[in-house]
Amino acid sequence: MTLPIGPDDVLDAATRLASIVVRTPVIFSPALDDATGQPVVCKAENLQRTGSFKFRGAFNHAVSLPAEALVHGIIGASSGNHAQALALASQLLGAPCTVVIPNDAPKAKVEGAIALGAQIVTYDRRTGDRDALVSELADRLNLSVVPSANSLRVMAGAGTAALELLTDHPDITTLLVPVGGGGLAAGTAVIAKHLRPGIRVIGVEPHTAADTLASLRAGRRTPLQEVPLTVADGLGHTIPSELPWQVNATLLDDVVTVTDPEITFAMGYAFQHLKCVVEPSGAVALAAVLAHRIDSADGKVGVMVSGGGVDLPVFHDLTSNARTRKVMPAHA
Amino acid sequence: MTLPIGPDDVLDAATRLASIVVRTPVIFSPALDDATGQPVVCKAENLQRTGSFKFRGAFNHAVSLPAEALVHGIIGASSGNHAQALALASQLLGAPCTVVIPNDAPKAKVEGAIALGAQIVTYDRRTGDRDALVSELADRLNLSVVPSANSLRVMAGAGTAALELLTDHPDITTLLVPVGGGGLAAGTAVIAKHLRPGIRVIGVEPHTAADTLASLRAGRRTPLQEVPLTVADGLGHTIPSELPWQVNATLLDDVVTVTDPEITFAMGYAFQHLKCVVEPSGAVALAAVLAHRIDSADGKVGVMVSGGGVDLPVFHDLTSNARTRKVMPAHA
Repeated sequence: MTLPIGPDDVLDAATRLASIVVRTPVIFSPALDDATGQPVVCKAENLQRTGSFKFRGAFNHAVSLPAEALVHGIIGASSGNHAQALALASQLLGAPCTVVIPNDAPKAKVEGAIALGAQIVTYDRRTGDRDALVSELADRLNLSVVPSANSLRVMAGAGTAALELLTDHPDITTLLVPVGGGGLAAGTAVIAKHLRPGIRVIGVEPHTAADTLASLRAGRRTPLQEVPLTVADGLGHTIPSELPWQVNATLLDDVVTVTDPEITFAMGYAFQHLKCVVEPSGAVALAAVLAHRIDSADGKVGVMVSGGGVDLPVFHDLTSNARTRKVMPAHA
Repeated sequence: MTLPIGPDDVLDAATRLASIVVRTPVIFSPALDDATGQPVVCKAENLQRTGSFKFRGAFNHAVSLPAEALVHGIIGASSGNHAQALALASQLLGAPCTVVIPNDAPKAKVEGAIALGAQIVTYDRRTGDRDALVSELADRLNLSVVPSANSLRVMAGAGTAALELLTDHPDITTLLVPVGGGGLAAGTAVIAKHLRPGIRVIGVEPHTAADTLASLRAGRRTPLQEVPLTVADGLGHTIPSELPWQVNATLLDDVVTVTDPEITFAMGYAFQHLKCVVEPSGAVALAAVLAHRIDSADGKVGVMVSGGGVDLPVFHDLTSNARTRKVMPAHA
């Protein structure tokens, strides 16, 4: 089967984004190497513009829209990070921006999107139909939809983070990437397998939101029966997005899962040892390596730290509870 | 007067340290630019090895010691960051390491030094004589003292952070640097004034530990009458170190001060907008710019974020109190 994107799409995106995105640093720590038993390097996309990797894909898609579409404006649905990314991309391109956000999204993410000039429309994740709402608004107001994952341009833009990481650390043998809608995993897998054919690319999902793992096991896109409850607000998907799924079903070597306590432990660990603020969704790949969820392997592990959008009081609660309850990764 | 170090010492240190230190990233945020009214870039030395800029100077000094001195071992006194830096430098050089640390130093810093193999000796900051203790141990055990600031090599190593920052951002017109013992400020001023003769280099001290400001006003090294009480545990000095003082008295354009609430506000700000963990001492320069303590100036402001060694529960308390009390920078 021909995949919906190839490595050239990622390389093209990298050229397009070179002067726009932050070439985020790669962070590591001897403590992390000791804790996991292997060298680990973290791509710090929490330090990307708007605080997550999402800006790469949102801009790469939006900049390709025709000028008349930009005049009317763009719209997207998001748990928060794609909203901020889209708001900044719109601001840079001079386009009006509307984002559809669940009413329980982190305050910092919503305020970030508003500060960047986006129009916010909220809905209830348990009862609302997000995609229907986006379609209706797009039709009525003549807006162009920028998907959060289900787009060639969005996947290709997301893949530029892995391109940078593998350029800086060509000796990575295993690459761990969070999976929500699947756009980051797809872009990552496409470029990683191109640059290093022998590399393992492993997706990481919250234990309660493992729709891509369930789909891989079933051999086809399979919806979860319930709206996932997970601390990882950006990864609570019920079914893999279609285009990313086609890539991930072919290229991912495996998908592993992590529990909420493992995620919050990783957030505290990143605070202490990496001096970095990581949101729950951004911490799942780090959690997987800290919980020894990956078969021990020789060589260097690359970890996508995908975002840092967590409110300070929420961070306090999550990491305090982790400490009070003495929650530790199951296999640590 | 001839200064104790010159720019060549910093350039030599940079060559020596190139493969040893992390070339730390420069972090910025549109929110920070908006809040301060000018472009601001932060040199993230909290992401340096052992979590602060101190490793640059400690290694630069220790590596210059004769082999027989390294066999006997090295010793230093520290509020915590220099201890960890010295411990790592010793480990890399195969030397035994002893560090003298106050008994109220942050747990993370003490544990960091122990994990790196250092022998810890504690003392009481209010009653003990740190320097006498170090001298006695050094004499008795034949150890070489690596000062935390009062050394050509330590100052020169510290200055390499500013060298990197000004290489990445040659258009910085004002550079803000925390002042404790004064080694970082001295190394920074020497290289900055060499590379950009017109640049302003401004030291920042905690309001209650402004020994360098008091000394500048008096025209000579002047001790504070009391042991300073400040949240910035790394900057609680009572008198400037001698060699850094000679540099700083000549080259610093100004010294400004910040209050504890301004420091903790900056820590919360860095968490939210820079996704970075900054310790109180590491946040004073950021606090100064957020509190509009610097005369508004055209051009770009460089901020030395010097360290990230803060325990998570302490961070919780400091930033929660800041929120509860609605403490805001005085001039924000």
